[in-house]
Amino acid sequence: MEGRRVIGWAARDSSGHLSPYSFTLREPGPEDVVFKVLYCGMDHTDLHQMRNEIHSTNYPLVPGHEVVGQVVELGSDVKKFRVKDIVGVGCIVGSCGECLSCKSNEEQYCNNRILTYNGTDKDGRPTQGGFSSAMVVHHKFVVRIPEKLAPEQAAPLLCAGVTAYSPLKQFKGFNKALKAGILGLGGVGHLGVLIAKAMGHHVTVISSSDKKRVEALEQLGADAFLISSNTAEMEQAASSLDYILDTVPAVHPLQSYLPLLKVDGKLMLVGVAPKPLQFDSVDLILGKKTISGSLIGSMEETQEILEFWALKGLTSMVEVVKMDYSNQAFERMERNDVRYRFVLDVAGSNLE
Amino acid sequence: MEGRRVIGWAARDSSGHLSPYSFTLREPGPEDVVFKVLYCGMDHTDLHQMRNEIHSTNYPLVPGHEVVGQVVELGSDVKKFRVKDIVGVGCIVGSCGECLSCKSNEEQYCNNRILTYNGTDKDGRPTQGGFSSAMVVHHKFVVRIPEKLAPEQAAPLLCAGVTAYSPLKQFKGFNKALKAGILGLGGVGHLGVLIAKAMGHHVTVISSSDKKRVEALEQLGADAFLISSNTAEMEQAASSLDYILDTVPAVHPLQSYLPLLKVDGKLMLVGVAPKPLQFDSVDLILGKKTISGSLIGSMEETQEILEFWALKGLTSMVEVVKMDYSNQAFERMERNDVRYRFVLDVAGSNLE
Repeated sequence: MEGRRVIGWAARDSSGHLSPYSFTLREPGPEDVVFKVLYCGMDHTDLHQMRNEIHSTNYPLVPGHEVVGQVVELGSDVKKFRVKDIVGVGCIVGSCGECLSCKSNEEQYCNNRILTYNGTDKDGRPTQGGFSSAMVVHHKFVVRIPEKLAPEQAAPLLCAGVTAYSPLKQFKGFNKALKAGILGLGGVGHLGVLIAKAMGHHVTVISSSDKKRVEALEQLGADAFLISSNTAEMEQAASSLDYILDTVPAVHPLQSYLPLLKVDGKLMLVGVAPKPLQFDSVDLILGKKTISGSLIGSMEETQEILEFWALKGLTSMVEVVKMDYSNQAFERMERNDVRYRFVLDVAGSNLE
Repeated sequence: MEGRRVIGWAARDSSGHLSPYSFTLREPGPEDVVFKVLYCGMDHTDLHQMRNEIHSTNYPLVPGHEVVGQVVELGSDVKKFRVKDIVGVGCIVGSCGECLSCKSNEEQYCNNRILTYNGTDKDGRPTQGGFSSAMVVHHKFVVRIPEKLAPEQAAPLLCAGVTAYSPLKQFKGFNKALKAGILGLGGVGHLGVLIAKAMGHHVTVISSSDKKRVEALEQLGADAFLISSNTAEMEQAASSLDYILDTVPAVHPLQSYLPLLKVDGKLMLVGVAPKPLQFDSVDLILGKKTISGSLIGSMEETQEILEFWALKGLTSMVEVVKMDYSNQAFERMERNDVRYRFVLDVAGSNLE
């Protein structure tokens, strides 16, 4: 058998323009889950990959790594799901299973992780993402979407949400209100605000301008808003934060933000900057401070953030669009004209 | 009463030249320890302060913050020492006692810490260091030198030793041999090698040249030696270390060292660089790595490293000199011509 024929939307060249593309899925094995795609989040990484800005794109490329679907078929060894279950897939669909990271359930750090798209599957076939009518994924890399959660709400949690949650979970369950800073208010940042608030922390949004003040305070429920260019405000806030979740995927001066941390404070980077970042060693040394990095999250943590979201009754801010709007949506995303995440209604779109 | 008259060696101007200087100690209070100075370590910080290179020096300045002495008098409330006990004082002689750092026994991070010299004591008088015949210090900032430890051996532990120990102690008691990197082989670095070895770790010394290979491997007992300019060797060592103790007090490219760390690896800075340091955020994010800073150590940790040193029977490499050699010793230190620490025999010197 040749595999299941599906239709997705693919970029064909570095213009990044998406258009219908017909391809076949791999034949499902006994450990695989076959699901129909319902919704898929749209992310800046998609755009970078579609345009070959990371210089590793293989065309045609079907993007999408925040995929929510409904199970249509299960391999004989898959016991944790049933047909019709609502499931999710994030940034990776495979890892070696042998290395220390895999054995510690931190498969996202496996050197041989297989990316959900623009990766190479174990059979040598290119992986293709969630801008597609269906997918075949090993059950280890499929999570369960809690019943209480609307599928379009779940989509952004599978990459952006778990990216914020993984570094924040170390602060879960602190019996005092920690002082949190969220630097950058985009897809990851807005979910970071909601997660930190739901953990009981006092949340300050740090932004380069005043533009998002009202939405940060009123719509997302942040406790304070700090403009990084306002020297007086920044000085007043010195030594006030226990941690900063830094979501800025661009070069930015850590010298401005490290002084905001208390002794033992932690700045956690989740957005890759294209050039080196700078900091003053004296800031770290005199304050026992830490700069760390964190990559998405593990499958276990992906399941955790979904349960946490359902338990706390949280709502992310998404704009649901059809596939024929996808090119326009990416253009708007590029202009930062989205609050805060586009989610594609794949099942409700005409893909032909 | 006017206070006890003592004689020390002081710098009088930014030449940093030391010469005899007579001054009075403060009148000891009920919580103070008065001790005769026996030995005092010599450190790069002393030189920077003597020459006003940190732009905060008040002259005359009596340096010395690795002070070993013998108790001659005790305040009425001091119960933990007896006259004739051998005691030690490190970089600080006071703190506020009220802040979170003080209350967490991390008084070195107190914003109002009082430096052992070139600080301002609670009575407004300038503090003066251990290049002096005697000192008066509050008992909280005085540690006990274990009987098994030679006093000249103890001196470098009071700053350099605890600076290495404080960040390393988180790795104490790991039941597997951790892979350690020690970057820079000076006063702090050579003690770092000895401490990490005594903790059972596999120790790689990372150095800019081949010069110290034999002493690192044969005299200090390191397990491996890596030259940072040797690209092939550095690539071979990629992802091999659990932590790096970075003792380099100068600008150096963290981009070269972070790839040496395994996933979850930690680079710990203890030497302040005069200009910003750079790193690639992708190194931290893809490997869940951490850059942190650490300042000397607490009084509790200072006592711990002394006990640890005695328990393990360790020997630091010191060159003992008299006070009249101090100016020459600083010149040699500046040329890196000391293995690895000068210790002044203060009690055995003619100070007049």
